[in-house]
Amino acid sequence: MQNFESLVSHDMVPLLEKGREDGVETIWDRVQSMKAQCGFGLKGLCCRICAMGPCRISPVPGKGASRGLCGATADVIVSRNLARMVAAGTASHSDHARGIIHLLHQASKDGDYKIKNVDKLRKLAAEWNIDTEGKDIYEIGHIVAEAALENFGKPFGEIKLPEAVPEVRKELWRRENIMPRAIDREVVSIMHSTHIGCMADAEEMLRMALRTSLADGWAGSYMGTVISDILFDVPKATKTESNLAVLEENQVNIILHGHEPSLSEMILLAVSDPGLVARAKEVGADGINLVGMCCTGNELSMRHGTKNGGNFLQQELAVITGAVEAVIVDVQCILPSLADLTKKYHTDFITTSPTARITGATHIEFDEGNAYESAKSIVLKAIENFPNRDKEYICIPDNRTEFMVGYSVESIIEHLDKAANENEKGSLMPLVGAIAGRKIRGVAALVGCNNPRIKQDYNHIKIAEKLIENDVLVVATGCSATALAKAGLVNIESAKLAGDGLKSVCEGLNIPPVLHMGSCVDISRILQLTGEIAKLLEVDISDLPVVGVAPEWMSEKAVAIGVYVVATGIDTWLGVLPQITGSEKVVNILVKDVEDIVGAKFFVETDPIKTAEQIVERMDMKRRRLGI
Amino acid sequence: MQNFESLVSHDMVPLLEKGREDGVETIWDRVQSMKAQCGFGLKGLCCRICAMGPCRISPVPGKGASRGLCGATADVIVSRNLARMVAAGTASHSDHARGIIHLLHQASKDGDYKIKNVDKLRKLAAEWNIDTEGKDIYEIGHIVAEAALENFGKPFGEIKLPEAVPEVRKELWRRENIMPRAIDREVVSIMHSTHIGCMADAEEMLRMALRTSLADGWAGSYMGTVISDILFDVPKATKTESNLAVLEENQVNIILHGHEPSLSEMILLAVSDPGLVARAKEVGADGINLVGMCCTGNELSMRHGTKNGGNFLQQELAVITGAVEAVIVDVQCILPSLADLTKKYHTDFITTSPTARITGATHIEFDEGNAYESAKSIVLKAIENFPNRDKEYICIPDNRTEFMVGYSVESIIEHLDKAANENEKGSLMPLVGAIAGRKIRGVAALVGCNNPRIKQDYNHIKIAEKLIENDVLVVATGCSATALAKAGLVNIESAKLAGDGLKSVCEGLNIPPVLHMGSCVDISRILQLTGEIAKLLEVDISDLPVVGVAPEWMSEKAVAIGVYVVATGIDTWLGVLPQITGSEKVVNILVKDVEDIVGAKFFVETDPIKTAEQIVERMDMKRRRLGI
Repeated sequence: MQNFESLVSHDMVPLLEKGREDGVETIWDRVQSMKAQCGFGLKGLCCRICAMGPCRISPVPGKGASRGLCGATADVIVSRNLARMVAAGTASHSDHARGIIHLLHQASKDGDYKIKNVDKLRKLAAEWNIDTEGKDIYEIGHIVAEAALENFGKPFGEIKLPEAVPEVRKELWRRENIMPRAIDREVVSIMHSTHIGCMADAEEMLRMALRTSLADGWAGSYMGTVISDILFDVPKATKTESNLAVLEENQVNIILHGHEPSLSEMILLAVSDPGLVARAKEVGADGINLVGMCCTGNELSMRHGTKNGGNFLQQELAVITGAVEAVIVDVQCILPSLADLTKKYHTDFITTSPTARITGATHIEFDEGNAYESAKSIVLKAIENFPNRDKEYICIPDNRTEFMVGYSVESIIEHLDKAANENEKGSLMPLVGAIAGRKIRGVAALVGCNNPRIKQDYNHIKIAEKLIENDVLVVATGCSATALAKAGLVNIESAKLAGDGLKSVCEGLNIPPVLHMGSCVDISRILQLTGEIAKLLEVDISDLPVVGVAPEWMSEKAVAIGVYVVATGIDTWLGVLPQITGSEKVVNILVKDVEDIVGAKFFVETDPIKTAEQIVERMDMKRRRLGI
Repeated sequence: MQNFESLVSHDMVPLLEKGREDGVETIWDRVQSMKAQCGFGLKGLCCRICAMGPCRISPVPGKGASRGLCGATADVIVSRNLARMVAAGTASHSDHARGIIHLLHQASKDGDYKIKNVDKLRKLAAEWNIDTEGKDIYEIGHIVAEAALENFGKPFGEIKLPEAVPEVRKELWRRENIMPRAIDREVVSIMHSTHIGCMADAEEMLRMALRTSLADGWAGSYMGTVISDILFDVPKATKTESNLAVLEENQVNIILHGHEPSLSEMILLAVSDPGLVARAKEVGADGINLVGMCCTGNELSMRHGTKNGGNFLQQELAVITGAVEAVIVDVQCILPSLADLTKKYHTDFITTSPTARITGATHIEFDEGNAYESAKSIVLKAIENFPNRDKEYICIPDNRTEFMVGYSVESIIEHLDKAANENEKGSLMPLVGAIAGRKIRGVAALVGCNNPRIKQDYNHIKIAEKLIENDVLVVATGCSATALAKAGLVNIESAKLAGDGLKSVCEGLNIPPVLHMGSCVDISRILQLTGEIAKLLEVDISDLPVVGVAPEWMSEKAVAIGVYVVATGIDTWLGVLPQITGSEKVVNILVKDVEDIVGAKFFVETDPIKTAEQIVERMDMKRRRLGI
């Protein structure tokens, strides 16, 4: 175990020990067995784009090849590889959104999927100039869905952006030729430009990456969130619990893991089905315990206060508890290792999406056209598995933590309204006032993954602690939000850890110093927040003391996020070195020159304390420039 | 030089020698300096899909890591990498088509781009049920363009396929769940499914690759060809010349290299501009000599009989002649090494497309809205460069070869009509008769690139020679067609090299035994040909004695092509080992199991003679099954 202690959260050690006794492998074992990583790959200097290669460029001039067979330089290879990561990340978020929009298109009054938030639908319809006069709400929903789908494939003009984007920012995007045209088209453009014999200019390549990423943040992800809110309602602040302790000793434990609310909302309904609850009791359980994980965990807790079992690095550990009847998954961030791992326990591993079939899993394709019945059949499988549990070998950790969740922009405004004077009701103006008055120094968005190469959750937590101490309001999503929730930073009481300014705001509004704003696609809520603040202050987003931080990122989605956050004008700190160091030019563009284009840049800092210090310094600089 | 002789075409040796004297580097130098290639990459066992990695899987069980950090097995990693190649290839072809369709949308009676083939436009409009009654031809063109653009982004239903696809094949695609929905969407689907934590099943991954590739072959590429024909006319058989000898000692030599006819058609007009011709004479040249290269060379020769300077591996050699005033490029297969290489000579290297900027090139963005003037300004730059030529250092090889080109399906039917009886006019029936009567044993499509790791053009030529000797009609596109043209196989006289059956057909129709059918997107012409033949015989395409061969492929486009050809039901031979050998499962699916899905499979054979023998054997088997 010694080897792992530097990498796993302390409270996870007993589970790792159990896993070792059980003779199973975890991601930390694989970190060990992978040994040295490829130096070319780490530097971004490996090109596998055509079959003349693979080519690997020497980082040392005069030693080894300095160009690929086609003549591609380090700058070209590194920038192409990075652009493809942005394309894949954008594709993933946006394809998720596409699914949600199709759900809205098939929603009906008597169907399994209904429209729960009519106000938000009407607001979007008005924003898109859709004539709703005399139309039934579902009819409007279908028209809005069709309009939303246009954003993926519209053949002419610009992408349709939300109202929250300040005009000045749109003009910048047009001027810099990074205004997206359509989501799918931008992904395809990168795939084309990165083909052999196309783009061989790092700056132009990265400009395309900026453009594509904006299609993710402000269209794909953004629509994903908005339409999810229309279908499943806008989240409101609520209290719930996190970490693997939420697994119940004598209940049918179902881990719901992945990303798409289409599945999770229906499974949530199914676990309350009286027939299924009765069946659970018949097989000897006290009930059915639904536990979310990763972004599905965030989606469920945001809207329903469902308990959250943990983040990315806990999916294997959940199985090792021996107390999980089924891990039900849809798409993204599902470790394929679960197929083998679950076989060592009684756990059913059930894939549900054609986008993510996994060899060795049981595939029960989730049928959105018959969603409730489909969800019930999946839940039933978990229930029937309960008697197979080996009660002797259950180990549920004792690390339950309460946290607050559900801070949509609407919910934040609701909190502000309670403290606001009459003129400022229904607006973010009181928050703007707190920032202008320096009670809040700035806003930091903590986002992104776990990465098994660095200590689990540690950087998320250290950065957040230091930031709130310095009066920086932290807004968090995804695995970062869960890490902070588990650490106890996402509750009302932790306001005491904040600096005096932030503490007074938290106490006044009855909010935590770290606001859980949802899943990774919900970073769009943070975009909305910053866009609205900039508009209220009549400045550009890049003028605000607002930053993004991805302390433990690992996925291509995180790359797309980082790039669209910077393209939005928000400085972004990365705690994991991207695979770009083989090109000084690419590094310089990202940590320096890109600021001339979009007014923000990347900072790479692996030390969490230094990260927080740099952020505070940068915020103070922005505040000085704003004269606040 | 000794090292290179095994890799370059014999007639290119003097140019390589000159290059060495000139102190410049070519792709063969880079092959030497790259030394050993990465064994993981070659086997497809390298994964750079997330920042937990890069991961490399050991091909030897028990030695090194057997899974990536996420748990991805060799099967998963290899299949994901391959699928991404298909996505990139599909994106490239289809984005090319998108550009052409936008041109049709902006075509006008008085504009630079006109509609030259009204019949083909009307035929397409009718096929797509577009009401043309009382509409001006340009109005119809714009409606057709909009309908074509829908195929990239349609949010519902299936992709719109051409009439040439037999019903039985469409049913198969639906049954096997590989019927594409929309071009861009399929590319995005693969990028999503290959994201970390999504698809981890080799068979399902490859099924997605099949679906996506079909969107390339039967939609992206297909529409690219059809709409190019509408704008620039359907190719007709014509004679021209190939190889670098077509450069002229005392003319302004312009190499036009890349893929998109939007640029090349306009440059072709510009070089005849009287003002520019006069200017060329003023600077001391006898005239302007436009020479096509790679697929742009094929596009130009197909429609205008423009001379073709050569294929992929000759782009650097063209510059080394010292006789080229400008290399004008658009997208795909442009060696970025040209930027440095042209600086050693007087040659201007001009990029024109935002999709393919190249550091070190002169970028003159081609303005399609002001196309003729834009083309003239680019040509003028070449002319003004003529006086900078160093006449002492010119070396133009003496390897001019005549060849026939322009065999669109329409042109083939025109040839057949001359020999056909009254009932069979306007149809491919006489060709079907020749196949059924075994004058033609079968049809082999020779396609794809050069690859500097194997001897330039050699495999293309050897395979074609052996096939025509065995009465196999060869249809060729892309760099393969140019290789065969240079070898003298694409002319009427070479019928004498054919077996008796094929020879009699060639003589009767006055055609070569190798038909040059165009650029790489024009493989759609071959699809059309096979689809129509299958329909006439009332069988599926997979029943026909028709094969695809990519002897020297290297690009991701070639991967997409190979996959859609197989998905179409046509067995395909690869002369270069794909990077898949790290997964026995993936290999087995591609060379065996895929036949159960689509009725065709891959053959990997690096020996050209064995390739031809296998093809003949397979054709005879198909003939026996058909009872012909």
